[in-house]
Amino acid sequence: MSTVGKAAVAWEAGKDLTIEDIEVLPPRANEVRIEIYYTGVCHTDAYTLSGKDPEGAFPIVLGHEGAGIVESVGEGVTSVKPGDYVVALYTPECKECKFCKSGKTNLCGKIRATQGKGVMPDGTSRFKCKGKDLLHFMGTSTFSQYTVVADISVVAITKDAPMDRTCLLGCGITTGYGAAVETAKVEEGSTVAIFGAGCVGLSVVQGAVQRKAGKIIVVDLNPGKKEWADKFGATDFVNPSDLKGQTIQEKLIEMTDGGCDYTFDCTGNVGVMRAALEACHKGWGQSIVIGVAAAGQEISTRPFQLVTGRVWKGCAFGGIKGRTQLPDLVADYMAGKLKVDEFITHRKNLDGINDAFETMKQGDCIRCVVDMRK
Amino acid sequence: MSTVGKAAVAWEAGKDLTIEDIEVLPPRANEVRIEIYYTGVCHTDAYTLSGKDPEGAFPIVLGHEGAGIVESVGEGVTSVKPGDYVVALYTPECKECKFCKSGKTNLCGKIRATQGKGVMPDGTSRFKCKGKDLLHFMGTSTFSQYTVVADISVVAITKDAPMDRTCLLGCGITTGYGAAVETAKVEEGSTVAIFGAGCVGLSVVQGAVQRKAGKIIVVDLNPGKKEWADKFGATDFVNPSDLKGQTIQEKLIEMTDGGCDYTFDCTGNVGVMRAALEACHKGWGQSIVIGVAAAGQEISTRPFQLVTGRVWKGCAFGGIKGRTQLPDLVADYMAGKLKVDEFITHRKNLDGINDAFETMKQGDCIRCVVDMRK
Repeated sequence: MSTVGKAAVAWEAGKDLTIEDIEVLPPRANEVRIEIYYTGVCHTDAYTLSGKDPEGAFPIVLGHEGAGIVESVGEGVTSVKPGDYVVALYTPECKECKFCKSGKTNLCGKIRATQGKGVMPDGTSRFKCKGKDLLHFMGTSTFSQYTVVADISVVAITKDAPMDRTCLLGCGITTGYGAAVETAKVEEGSTVAIFGAGCVGLSVVQGAVQRKAGKIIVVDLNPGKKEWADKFGATDFVNPSDLKGQTIQEKLIEMTDGGCDYTFDCTGNVGVMRAALEACHKGWGQSIVIGVAAAGQEISTRPFQLVTGRVWKGCAFGGIKGRTQLPDLVADYMAGKLKVDEFITHRKNLDGINDAFETMKQGDCIRCVVDMRK
Repeated sequence: MSTVGKAAVAWEAGKDLTIEDIEVLPPRANEVRIEIYYTGVCHTDAYTLSGKDPEGAFPIVLGHEGAGIVESVGEGVTSVKPGDYVVALYTPECKECKFCKSGKTNLCGKIRATQGKGVMPDGTSRFKCKGKDLLHFMGTSTFSQYTVVADISVVAITKDAPMDRTCLLGCGITTGYGAAVETAKVEEGSTVAIFGAGCVGLSVVQGAVQRKAGKIIVVDLNPGKKEWADKFGATDFVNPSDLKGQTIQEKLIEMTDGGCDYTFDCTGNVGVMRAALEACHKGWGQSIVIGVAAAGQEISTRPFQLVTGRVWKGCAFGGIKGRTQLPDLVADYMAGKLKVDEFITHRKNLDGINDAFETMKQGDCIRCVVDMRK
């Protein structure tokens, strides 16, 4: 049976979202309908809404950082049941495909094609509004009081964990923390530089702290981010605009006796990605691209940087397998080992979601959590 | 006491080498004077001679792929003694510096600065000709009947191994083989593509064969290289000029059900380096840059290639530590486990070394070995 709920609908690129009553069809086989309680707002949502993403299509229900409770499940669903507290996963995990079985990546391939097209695995939408089908976004569409996702795109977590916090584990925090501990596997005593001190960058910082890195340098053009870097355990802060006659890579190489063991781009700026690679130590330094660049932009460097031992890599969702690993991250949070509350600088209700987008553009916003039931 | 011997001197960029009698000063502390018996001629020698290398300086004694016998040693040298059969190492190994101790790289840092300037570690040259000092090249200068190298730039090998073969372990063969087995650590059953079937590329093939790769695809514009690829154990050969309406990366992705596990650039062409990265499998494919690009050229790609799990890296001398690992490679050769003889397509005497450079530019030349005593 269909459910009717409110959702923030993106009717077209570059326009505000509109709060609408939408019809959410029941879950089909291997699908799960979730009542979303809280969602974060992330730069990827804003990027698609802006129209700059050439693959972005409309009308669509955005949102990919959400927590809620399973309302109903389709035929064949065994991994979650109605009443389960869950986090939606834009990086699914089927545990059966070539990717999942490889042991080398978290990028499940099972529903990639349809997810990219904004539809469910059977090729259709579960959202209707004003006689039109709305597209799904990143397999999650958490800007809706009810959403339908594939059963491989959701993970149950403990009911003890507050959903207005766990929603953030659906993207930003896990992405940064995972990049440090899972993708880079930062080692004790190593030197780390993080470009961009937003939610993702600060999460890299806490991953580096957890791994006992010796030097954790945050790089950000916003001087106000120094306080944030300190709060999360960074040892140094560099504002590139304060450098006189020195590039940021030169500065970092100087600060680290030859370059960093690990650097992370959390900006999506291709010039920064280059600087991050070139700030790595010769022979072994690894640079991890996390940020999403604008369409058509390219990274470049002299190949000598690689021939002399630097490694350029990247990750999505931090390299974390959502269904396998997210419950452990929630447990770490509950045990006080993973900061989550500290990221929340703003809160909005669903009807204020456009304000949340505006807020995100401001320097003092790390994460804005939207209460979907208000 | 100085020794006089013949050497092929590069007096200026873009000109032929000139055979001259040169004075080779005795080895100072921690230096070794070697009588060079055989040397290979490599593209890096030709690149510097061409004048395209902005760091190339003249007059200089080129050559970096040489084998010979220790003639005398300076004070404090304990690792080799007169009469030892040796291979010169353009990638030294001091076993003491930050790099050598890291366990993560073969790029020793101890004499890098002076080696790059074309002088011995004390800042001076050991070569004199017509009243002028000649520069050293890559710490080896093997185009001379006598050369002086730092004691960390030479390794003793068994006297049973023929020097007209072992000289090739000083660069090309080790570089390619090491890239496959040491840098990439190619795994059994994996899919590998090698761009460029010269000495380095064919050595990658034999590294991949040794590691029991499941599919080994050689890519070369020269159709004559198919036979070479087959001879070294490649399973497939692709000539990009035979492809109709398909890029080489598309072809390789099609041939490997999603992309290669490992790709290697052995061309030095930055466009090929990009194709090699983009031919990698999403989630885990690694591309290793081995070729040396022309000055000022840059590699580029969309960062999405990295965010979706591809890894871009590189190596010099295959990631092999010369003093520690070269004797094992020689042992493998002697045991019939490593092909070396098969690479030698041409031979010249010292007075025909300019012909060796010409020969190298021809498609049927894999390696030309120069007999330094004739």
